[in-house]
Amino acid sequence: MTQPKLTPLAARLPASVPFVGPEAQERQRNQQFIARLGANESGFGPSPKAIAAMQKAASEVWMYGDAENHDLRHTLAKMHGVAPENIMVGQGIDGLLGVLVRLYVAKGENVVTSAGAYPTFNYHVAGFGGVLHTVPYKDDHEDPDALIAKALETQAKLIYISNPDNPMGTWHSAETMAQMIAKTPVGSLLILDEAYIDLAPDGTAPAIDVTNPNVIRMRTFSKAHGMAGARVGYAIGHAEVINAFNKVRDHFGMSRISQAGALAALQDTDWLPHIRAEVANSRNRISQIATENGLSALPSATNFVAIDCGADGAFAKSILAALIDQGIFVRMPFVTPQDRCIRVSCGPTDQIDAFAAALPKALATARAALR
Amino acid sequence: MTQPKLTPLAARLPASVPFVGPEAQERQRNQQFIARLGANESGFGPSPKAIAAMQKAASEVWMYGDAENHDLRHTLAKMHGVAPENIMVGQGIDGLLGVLVRLYVAKGENVVTSAGAYPTFNYHVAGFGGVLHTVPYKDDHEDPDALIAKALETQAKLIYISNPDNPMGTWHSAETMAQMIAKTPVGSLLILDEAYIDLAPDGTAPAIDVTNPNVIRMRTFSKAHGMAGARVGYAIGHAEVINAFNKVRDHFGMSRISQAGALAALQDTDWLPHIRAEVANSRNRISQIATENGLSALPSATNFVAIDCGADGAFAKSILAALIDQGIFVRMPFVTPQDRCIRVSCGPTDQIDAFAAALPKALATARAALR
Repeated sequence: MTQPKLTPLAARLPASVPFVGPEAQERQRNQQFIARLGANESGFGPSPKAIAAMQKAASEVWMYGDAENHDLRHTLAKMHGVAPENIMVGQGIDGLLGVLVRLYVAKGENVVTSAGAYPTFNYHVAGFGGVLHTVPYKDDHEDPDALIAKALETQAKLIYISNPDNPMGTWHSAETMAQMIAKTPVGSLLILDEAYIDLAPDGTAPAIDVTNPNVIRMRTFSKAHGMAGARVGYAIGHAEVINAFNKVRDHFGMSRISQAGALAALQDTDWLPHIRAEVANSRNRISQIATENGLSALPSATNFVAIDCGADGAFAKSILAALIDQGIFVRMPFVTPQDRCIRVSCGPTDQIDAFAAALPKALATARAALR
Repeated sequence: MTQPKLTPLAARLPASVPFVGPEAQERQRNQQFIARLGANESGFGPSPKAIAAMQKAASEVWMYGDAENHDLRHTLAKMHGVAPENIMVGQGIDGLLGVLVRLYVAKGENVVTSAGAYPTFNYHVAGFGGVLHTVPYKDDHEDPDALIAKALETQAKLIYISNPDNPMGTWHSAETMAQMIAKTPVGSLLILDEAYIDLAPDGTAPAIDVTNPNVIRMRTFSKAHGMAGARVGYAIGHAEVINAFNKVRDHFGMSRISQAGALAALQDTDWLPHIRAEVANSRNRISQIATENGLSALPSATNFVAIDCGADGAFAKSILAALIDQGIFVRMPFVTPQDRCIRVSCGPTDQIDAFAAALPKALATARAALR
C-alpha cells in the first residue's frame, strides 16, 4: 500500500454529481446559455432589501457568522409559531439532508423515496451506506400510501417526500399530507421537503406540529426567496430531532452574508406576494406555450412547469437536447413515465420568450429524428 | 419506540460546539464586545476589490454557485503551479476537514494530532467514530517526530498538524515540514493545515508536490484574506485524493457570493503584502503591550499572538475572564502547559488599544484573586 486507503464505504462510492450545473454545461458547449430555466432558480431575484443587506454584510465578512444563527432562527420561529429550539438553519436543504441522513442512517439501513424524486437526497443516502427503496409515482404525483407501505415493509429509518413535488410540480392537499404524517410508522422519520411551499396554493402545508418527533419539515431561501446561491435552508421539527444536528453539523459553516440576506428577506413581507404573482403569470405563460406547440403542461404548485411531450423519454430527451443546442438550459425527469416531460423553470419574460422561440424548432428536430 | 432512533454513533455523540462564538458570548453577557480579538479573524478586512465583487454577486445570488468552482480552482491551480485536478474548494477548512475525515476514517480507526491543537478537527474525528491519539507539544511547538512516531505506533489513517500553529503561533521551517512529509508512513495521510501560511516568513511552506498521495495541504480565505464569514477554503493534493471529495461533498454547497469574493481576492495581488505589514505591526504592538505588563509574548508567524501569563492555566483563565468582563473578546489554549497563555488576534489600532487599556486591570484582578 503506497496510498492511504479510503474507508470501505467511500472506496466503493463513485465520484459523481447529482446534477451537472449550467456553468459546467456552458463550458462543455463553449457558449453561454441565453435562458437559464433548468434549475428552478428564481430569475425574478431576491428582495432588493435582501440584496442590500448582503451588500452591507460583504464588508463585515471578516467575521465568522453567528454559529447559532440566532437572529434568523428566532425570526423563523416567530413566523412559524414554534420555539427557536424547533428550527435548524443549514447550508440549504441539500446540506440539511446530508446531516440528517448521517444522523439517522447507519450502513445497511433502509430509506424510502419515490422513483425519480430528488437525486441529491439519494446521493446522501448512498454516501452514508443506506439502502434506498423506491415506489413509483402515481398519476404524476408522489404516492403517500405507497411510501408508507414501503416504509412499514422495510422498517425504513427515513421516508422522503416533497410537497409540492419536484420534478413534476404536482401537489397533495394539506389533508393528504396530514394523513401521511399520522400514518408514519413509529421508528421512521418522515422528511417533508417543502422547498416550493411558498409557491403553492394557500393551505397546501399541513399544520406544523413540533411535538411530533416523526416528521421534519424542510424549507429554503433558494426558491421563492430567490437566493439559491446563498445556501440557506432550515428544518422545522421536534426539539430533540433539531438538537441532534448540533452533534455533527459544521457550526461555523454558514456564510455571514447569507445569514444577513435571509433575515432581510423575511423582513420584506411584500416580496413573496410579488413573487407568487410573477410565478403564477410565468406558469400560465409556459402552459400556453406548451399548448401552442401541441403539448400539454401539468398543473404546477412550484416555480416550474413540467411539459408532457406526449411520447416517451427518448423523445423528450431529444427535445431537451435541441433546446440546449439553442442555448436554452432546461432539465427533465430521470425516470419513466415522468421522463416523457421536460421541466421548465419560471422566469422573467425575456427568458420565457427565448424558450418560446426555441421550442418549435426543438420539436421539429425531435420529430424529424423519429422518422 | 415512539421516536426514530439515531445511529448508534450519533446517539452517543454529545450536542456540542468546538468553540462558543463571540455573538453567543455577547448574548450571554447581554452586551457587545468592544474588541473582537478572539477568533483570529482579520479586522483589517478583505480586499476592497473582494468586497466589490461580493456586492456585485449579491444581485446574482438567485443562481446556484458553479458546482465545479471552476474559475477559482483554475486560478488557484495556476498560482500554485499545479493542475486544477489538484485543488478542491470547500466550505472553509472546517468543511474540508469534515469531508476528509468522512472519506478516510472508518469507525474505530486511529487518528493522530497534538494535545491542544485544532478542536474542530477533533470534533470531526469524534463525529465519524474515529479514535484520536495525541502527543504533547514540545517547547510550545507541535512535535513532528512525536506525531510520526504515534502514527506508526497506531497505524493512523490521518495525522494532523498546523504550520504555523494555532493556538501558539509558533512554526517549523519548510525543511522540518518536508522531513515530516517524507517520514509520513505509507497508509497515513498527513493533513498539513496551512491556514496561517500567508502570514508566516517567506519559505515556511515546503514545496508543493502533488505526486505524493500521503500529504494534503489546507489553505483558507478566512485569515490573511479576511473572509472568515464567506466560508472558502481549499485543499491541494494528489489528484486521486482530491477527486475522492467528489464522492460525498455537497456539490452545490458553495455560496456564489463567496466564490466571487475569493476569486477577486486572489486577483488583488497588492492586498496580502498590505495585510502582512499590518499584521506584523500588530504582532509587535501586542508583544510590546505584553512586555509593558510584565508578561512575555511568544514569537508568532500568524495573525495572533500567544501571551505567556507566567503562571498556570487557572491564572491565565482568570485574566481571560477579566478581559471578557471588560468587553475584550480573546481566547486561550485548552491544554496544559499551553494554557498558561492567552491568545490575542491582531487587529486595527483601536481594537488593540482597547486590549491595552483593559489588560492592566485584568492582571490586577487575576493577581488579587491569587491572594
